Amino acid sequence: MPRLARKRALPLSKVYGHLEPGPVLLLTTSHKGHANVMPMSWHTMLEFEPPLVGCVISGNDFSFTALNASRECVLNIPTVELASQVVGCGNSSGAQEDKFLKYGLTPQPGSMVAAPLIAQCYASFECRVFDTRLKNRYNFFVLEVVRAWVKPACKAPRTLHHRGYGLFIVGGESIQLPSKMR
Amino acid sequence: MPRLARKRALPLSKVYGHLEPGPVLLLTTSHKGHANVMPMSWHTMLEFEPPLVGCVISGNDFSFTALNASRECVLNIPTVELASQVVGCGNSSGAQEDKFLKYGLTPQPGSMVAAPLIAQCYASFECRVFDTRLKNRYNFFVLEVVRAWVKPACKAPRTLHHRGYGLFIVGGESIQLPSKMR
Repeated sequence: MPRLARKRALPLSKVYGHLEPGPVLLLTTSHKGHANVMPMSWHTMLEFEPPLVGCVISGNDFSFTALNASRECVLNIPTVELASQVVGCGNSSGAQEDKFLKYGLTPQPGSMVAAPLIAQCYASFECRVFDTRLKNRYNFFVLEVVRAWVKPACKAPRTLHHRGYGLFIVGGESIQLPSKMR
Repeated sequence: MPRLARKRALPLSKVYGHLEPGPVLLLTTSHKGHANVMPMSWHTMLEFEPPLVGCVISGNDFSFTALNASRECVLNIPTVELASQVVGCGNSSGAQEDKFLKYGLTPQPGSMVAAPLIAQCYASFECRVFDTRLKNRYNFFVLEVVRAWVKPACKAPRTLHHRGYGLFIVGGESIQLPSKMR
């Protein structure tokens, strides 16, 4: 498990650089005093700043109900050391058990939302629901990131990129090309 | 440059496994007899089958006009060997020049849409515009993949994952965990 290094505030203008690569996220919610966590790979940036993120959450999931009711969540980014916890959270339901307890994940209080940050994840973005126009058609929520946290020591996070059924590509080397592309 | 190996048809049910990891894509369009190509990282799966993909294309881009008018495109997936072409395509405009010619990319005819496949990319998905309800608000198009092609020899593609301004994470090792997660 990664060390529980403290996270520091990240400027909102830098959030896209962590989500645009497409890592698996752990989405946390809090609803009726019950915190839950689920992995989520279907997400995209929609705007740089304020950062808007579109994501799909199955209507069958316990997290859908919690997000829909509370209109708040946290997007946490795990690295490869958390792969078994990610898969475990995806194969169980928050309706039956406390997944934080079961998978040894440490909840930390956020500053703007009731949903907890996950201490072991290298980055955590506190979000509020911004737009639900495509919720009924595609289970698609538009979230606004209102506060962002990152572990400064984690410069080249080995993120997980899901190909389906527990097969992941792990983020490898970084390459830098001269570019004007934001 | 990757070899121009022939692609084979991929079942539509397997498309998500190539897009869900979040790679940079090269989106091709054809409009008024003019083919164009642009890199695109802001995309997400919305449905497994038929595969629906949501993506953001800036309203300033030449490709926005072409996609909006033709309602067709191809999503091509480049690997790390094409990094300089990806960045080059992102730093120039199809209004001024033929990017296929400039960057040595080889267009191939699709079977269902007028936009070309890129021969050097390991996968190419022919798409039609499916839903434009969020186009005006977020430049967000919902595409339906109608035909999919992949190079069968490319089992562990070293895809590009953009962190901004030409910095990419390259897809590294693959790991497989026992999972029920689709």
